[in-house]
Amino acid sequence: MSQETTGPEPYRRAADYIAAVLIHLRENVLLKEPLRREHLKPRLLGHWGTCPGINRVYAALDRLVLERDADVLLVTGPGHGAPAVHANLWLEGTHADVDPALGRDGAGLRELSRRYCAPDGFPSHLSPAVPGTLHEGGELGYALSTAFGAALDAPGRLVACVVGDGEAETGPTAGAWHASKYLDPATSGAVLPFLHLNGYKISSPTVFATMSDSELTHLFRGYGWDPRIVDVTSDPGDESLVEAVADAHSAITAIQRQARSGTEPSPRPAWPMIVLRSLKGEGAPVEVEGRRIEGTFHSHQVPLADVHDDPVQLRALEAWLRSYRPEELFDEDGRPVPEVTAGCPEGRRRIGMQPAADGGRLRRPLDLPPLAPYAVGLGEGRGRSPAGPTEVLAEWLTEIMRRTAGRRDFRIVSPDELASNKLDAVLRATGRACTWPVEGYAEDLSRDGRVMEVLSEHTCQGWLQGYLQSGRHGLFPTYEAFASVVDSMLNQYAKWLKMSGEVPWRAPVSSLTYLLTSEGWRQEHNGYSHQGPGFINNLITKKSTVTGVYLPPDANTLLVTMERLLDETGKVNVVVAGKHEAAQWLGLDEARAHCAAGASTWAWASHERGEEPELVLACAGGIPTVETLAAAQLLREDLPDASIRVVNIVDLCALAPADRHPNGMPDDRFRALFGTDTPVVLDFHGYPSAVHQLLHGRPRPDRFHVRGYVEEGTTTTPYDLLAANGTSRHDLALTALEHLAARHPRAPELGDRYAAHRDRLRAELRRTGEDPAEITTWRWGG
Amino acid sequence: MSQETTGPEPYRRAADYIAAVLIHLRENVLLKEPLRREHLKPRLLGHWGTCPGINRVYAALDRLVLERDADVLLVTGPGHGAPAVHANLWLEGTHADVDPALGRDGAGLRELSRRYCAPDGFPSHLSPAVPGTLHEGGELGYALSTAFGAALDAPGRLVACVVGDGEAETGPTAGAWHASKYLDPATSGAVLPFLHLNGYKISSPTVFATMSDSELTHLFRGYGWDPRIVDVTSDPGDESLVEAVADAHSAITAIQRQARSGTEPSPRPAWPMIVLRSLKGEGAPVEVEGRRIEGTFHSHQVPLADVHDDPVQLRALEAWLRSYRPEELFDEDGRPVPEVTAGCPEGRRRIGMQPAADGGRLRRPLDLPPLAPYAVGLGEGRGRSPAGPTEVLAEWLTEIMRRTAGRRDFRIVSPDELASNKLDAVLRATGRACTWPVEGYAEDLSRDGRVMEVLSEHTCQGWLQGYLQSGRHGLFPTYEAFASVVDSMLNQYAKWLKMSGEVPWRAPVSSLTYLLTSEGWRQEHNGYSHQGPGFINNLITKKSTVTGVYLPPDANTLLVTMERLLDETGKVNVVVAGKHEAAQWLGLDEARAHCAAGASTWAWASHERGEEPELVLACAGGIPTVETLAAAQLLREDLPDASIRVVNIVDLCALAPADRHPNGMPDDRFRALFGTDTPVVLDFHGYPSAVHQLLHGRPRPDRFHVRGYVEEGTTTTPYDLLAANGTSRHDLALTALEHLAARHPRAPELGDRYAAHRDRLRAELRRTGEDPAEITTWRWGG
Repeated sequence: MSQETTGPEPYRRAADYIAAVLIHLRENVLLKEPLRREHLKPRLLGHWGTCPGINRVYAALDRLVLERDADVLLVTGPGHGAPAVHANLWLEGTHADVDPALGRDGAGLRELSRRYCAPDGFPSHLSPAVPGTLHEGGELGYALSTAFGAALDAPGRLVACVVGDGEAETGPTAGAWHASKYLDPATSGAVLPFLHLNGYKISSPTVFATMSDSELTHLFRGYGWDPRIVDVTSDPGDESLVEAVADAHSAITAIQRQARSGTEPSPRPAWPMIVLRSLKGEGAPVEVEGRRIEGTFHSHQVPLADVHDDPVQLRALEAWLRSYRPEELFDEDGRPVPEVTAGCPEGRRRIGMQPAADGGRLRRPLDLPPLAPYAVGLGEGRGRSPAGPTEVLAEWLTEIMRRTAGRRDFRIVSPDELASNKLDAVLRATGRACTWPVEGYAEDLSRDGRVMEVLSEHTCQGWLQGYLQSGRHGLFPTYEAFASVVDSMLNQYAKWLKMSGEVPWRAPVSSLTYLLTSEGWRQEHNGYSHQGPGFINNLITKKSTVTGVYLPPDANTLLVTMERLLDETGKVNVVVAGKHEAAQWLGLDEARAHCAAGASTWAWASHERGEEPELVLACAGGIPTVETLAAAQLLREDLPDASIRVVNIVDLCALAPADRHPNGMPDDRFRALFGTDTPVVLDFHGYPSAVHQLLHGRPRPDRFHVRGYVEEGTTTTPYDLLAANGTSRHDLALTALEHLAARHPRAPELGDRYAAHRDRLRAELRRTGEDPAEITTWRWGG
Repeated sequence: MSQETTGPEPYRRAADYIAAVLIHLRENVLLKEPLRREHLKPRLLGHWGTCPGINRVYAALDRLVLERDADVLLVTGPGHGAPAVHANLWLEGTHADVDPALGRDGAGLRELSRRYCAPDGFPSHLSPAVPGTLHEGGELGYALSTAFGAALDAPGRLVACVVGDGEAETGPTAGAWHASKYLDPATSGAVLPFLHLNGYKISSPTVFATMSDSELTHLFRGYGWDPRIVDVTSDPGDESLVEAVADAHSAITAIQRQARSGTEPSPRPAWPMIVLRSLKGEGAPVEVEGRRIEGTFHSHQVPLADVHDDPVQLRALEAWLRSYRPEELFDEDGRPVPEVTAGCPEGRRRIGMQPAADGGRLRRPLDLPPLAPYAVGLGEGRGRSPAGPTEVLAEWLTEIMRRTAGRRDFRIVSPDELASNKLDAVLRATGRACTWPVEGYAEDLSRDGRVMEVLSEHTCQGWLQGYLQSGRHGLFPTYEAFASVVDSMLNQYAKWLKMSGEVPWRAPVSSLTYLLTSEGWRQEHNGYSHQGPGFINNLITKKSTVTGVYLPPDANTLLVTMERLLDETGKVNVVVAGKHEAAQWLGLDEARAHCAAGASTWAWASHERGEEPELVLACAGGIPTVETLAAAQLLREDLPDASIRVVNIVDLCALAPADRHPNGMPDDRFRALFGTDTPVVLDFHGYPSAVHQLLHGRPRPDRFHVRGYVEEGTTTTPYDLLAANGTSRHDLALTALEHLAARHPRAPELGDRYAAHRDRLRAELRRTGEDPAEITTWRWGG
């Protein structure tokens, strides 16, 4: 059998065959008998169109491993091409090693096919259950930035990334091509993208299909790559791609060698990338019953959808499957013959065994510095000692940057907001990554910097996902309002984590932590578009076992929170913290106790008498804490006989019933804080709806009067923004008084006074353009 | 005064001066006196860095209007460059025409400056309150696709679009450059992008700043544009940009002329685009106290932040402002001198008076076809007459496409999911837009097609926003799970709409309606990543006056809902509808009554006895309706003496208290449906948390037992997916029985029976890979 005369090499022929089997057959998977209806799966699921192209890439990468011992991690953008990936994993024996039931024989293949798309089996797309995989590829757009994340600080790694031409249309992918400008060839590995151009999406041509070779070449040169176009529609053999990959590998090695040689590295390393033009659904019937299939979008999913009922289609399917000549590819027991397995690397060199795809096993916990030297003392008294929470945190993060200078396994990604968010102290310990030349003025750039700033939340998130999933650590500080740019990436990543936890062989990876700063309440200067706390709402729709929301009220609680989260695995967390100078409420030990509890009574701020207070003033978030304490102070002074408790909530999910969230407080602790019948005025940093939904299931949630951001905003002063949303200290006190009125006859009159005062303040700030001094200079008098 | 020897032409000099004034001064705005501290605003807000570049573009566009009578709409990506836009609006007199208090004299300028960034004044960014503006530009990334949307079907319009080099890094912008491949030069207008390359973001160089002219040229040629680089860092006069704009205009006109001439249009029209290289913060001091300002990121916001307290900075500010020689630009009363105003078009030709920026005034309501011919009859009985809701809708939409063939003011945008979502009937009335050549097989493409399919939800949304805001109509069908890709665009657009409603001179534009199909419950084949109903949760965080969520349970209710929403203005709506064949529950008249009510009792499905039922089974969404009715049927058969009401909810926000949402039911109607104490088992299409938060404020929300998607999913069968989330008919019946147990001793035993049956079914489907016939063939027996 010669591949020159008989089509693709046996390995790839076998992979295409198996991918087709996985979509169609539950019996007779070796086609030892004529194909009959009862051999078919009852429901045909899976996507054929992209599979042959993925198999081409996999086979060519295998050759690279065999011939050059490359250390390849494969990120497959079109996750619906899972049948192809499974085919390769089965052929190379990875599946058999992970689960003996999927052995490299006919029984194993039958079992694999039965599991593919079956309940409790493998999903139709890639998933955490697939060895060698760290990307699901269901929602398109994020493969390329994820691949870059996995390549960072792994100098020996080659991350191959298949980008479908559908995926290439997405904005996140279009932006991610620039990521090569951040990749240091000396300290990081390489990304080798394959733009798989098969011309069609679900039912239309792709944008890239309309582009000429000249346009494609221009585009990728413009992005800074060195594109190589491999067109297997005209030359369907394997060698052109194999040679292009080898060639690309040589170019990569040359760039790396120069960068690592100590001589001046290239200022604009033009990394190779490959455009693979192939027929969509290559190998499927060209036409059946007048419908064109191979090379059109009709091959996208299951090309012969009526195969159960239409004998013509059944015969076409059989002819298609037999065109791979399975009898040449497998022995009597269904074991792939040596000519086939000769195409596979063995043992740990197999792509499916890439350790970085199960990065939890590579992960080394961070050597976190002690907090005490960074904590803010309460020397000037509680509610004084002004400190900017993110600035305090930055000093601690700087030390982490220093401690990881050798290990290189901690990075910060941010959409150019590091300095704006007052975290730029870390630049004393590392630079901002930039390998491309900057001719003009710049500060703190370095080729191997571990701060990554690009004005693309999508790229930031992709980088961090790839970095964490391959066993490292990181942090994503970003403007609160614009975190929603990556809502859908968070959705998909949280799903990945949830499923990962159900795969026995996967080790958990570091938690992904967003540090939301420049919070809406202090975006009064940037205005309404910068005021949006909804990222929390999105996060808490995800499985509670993989999510957390933290609102540390001061610098020390922020330190304690970050110490916990940078040591944690398996979750997506949001931390909201201010960047402006703010009062300190808790000493470090108090902060530890408070964070451990999730929420606690601040006795020093309460003035309770008797068993149960008449009212609880609760707060979650930095600004709400200030306003709540100011309200408590007002009430203590003006209504000294009222019994009022102040509760601060740092772990928002502690509010949820314990059977709904792992951080949820047990009922008795919840009752101890909030009683069972006591009215609670709860000032929340975000949308009140987030709290309303968490409280569902707690006793009498209707007694919780939640204040928060209710979408009233513009460019104004901080106090005016609070008042517009009913969350100023005066509004809180006023709301409290409504619930104290039954026992305190003075309450209504006092409430009127607060309302009038608030209105006076708002009128005054309209004249002056600034908040009144009584607001800006307010200090806690405990 | 000669502009050759004295710097920029007077018009642009005046614009730069005014932009600087808006950021800094509240008095002495004409600098008639030496600058003193008390002339400064108490808080200095605004962004200088991008302003001079925007002024260059505005001035060059003005020249184009003056010399060629171009009909220009300006979309300004960097919305923080609002001071520049205000400066031009004041100079051209648009501000004065909209509000006489902002007259073109010293008093008007002082008032404008006082309002800029003041409470109740103009926000720091662009906003609906700014004439000539349809884009806020606070969250970066969406200017370019929005510009394209505004150019569609407006053959005489030239949409100039400033894209900052920060914004250019975003994925959505990177993807939107491909939009020119969808723009028909015959029937649509043109987009002229200005990539404003001033080199810096907030504190880093931009990615584009690291690119050479050759890379830039390659990149944009690759995208299909004809780029022209204008570098005013070396040639700071105005003429190079003016000439480039004139040149670009000639190229645009040539493309349009050819396309409209009846001869063969160019297969790859290379539209011109301009790369404008300028100094960031051009005109600001080069260096003050050792800090470099002009041409660096230090000029991004307020370049001299300590001007209140630092006399050196105050002097530097004065010198900067005086460098524009205001005494030459304004007369004694502060009126711009004729040499300045000579640069402005007049009357309706002014850019600020562009009617498309206030598209509500151009909007003509759609001539909607009557529904009756499209409605599904209940001839086979209620719960029969299977019809695919989206397929039924598609026929009606097709007629709208036909009726707008001449007007060309209705479009459908979709990420290549039209056919997949069974809406492809509309392709009988129009094509898929594609102006670039497709050499291979394709279906239904046409240059002037009004269906726009690109695998980028971002581009789809931008197109639709621009199209609606400029006075047209449209629809956005998309996969439910991936709608969250545009969460943040929705956030910003909802904010835009909310603020627009507060601007007296703005007319409302057509509502933006998402048709979410391929809903998660029927994504059992694509798996977990395709199961995500959280778009609703995000939408309902926005102001209730601009949002709506509709879950029509069948084809007729879908028709009625869409008829309402395609006639509505000023909102963002989500409609969830299935694409698979499903039972019909309501005739057209019933559907009208049901939709008008928002939610109503389905008496034919209830079996009530007495005043109040013992239990309400409520449902919202197509699949929940089926499961709820099946549960009701089970209970009626097995527990015939229980009194159970069935309520269907089509308008989700009807659940909210009337003072929280305009669609909220009055209390009495709510009580009439749900009682005050009756347990309610509510099966919701999405996350239960969405319902929990809406119910807050209703009597005893804890009696609502909401079932819905709780993030349990994979590739499995539809029934298994329902059962995994506790929303199968058996789970619903079981939950109902828990609340009937007190009065019905048989309930617990019956519940055990249902649970066991569910578990048997799940075991069975694991064997067969298919849902059992009793599920797939279930029919309502009323």
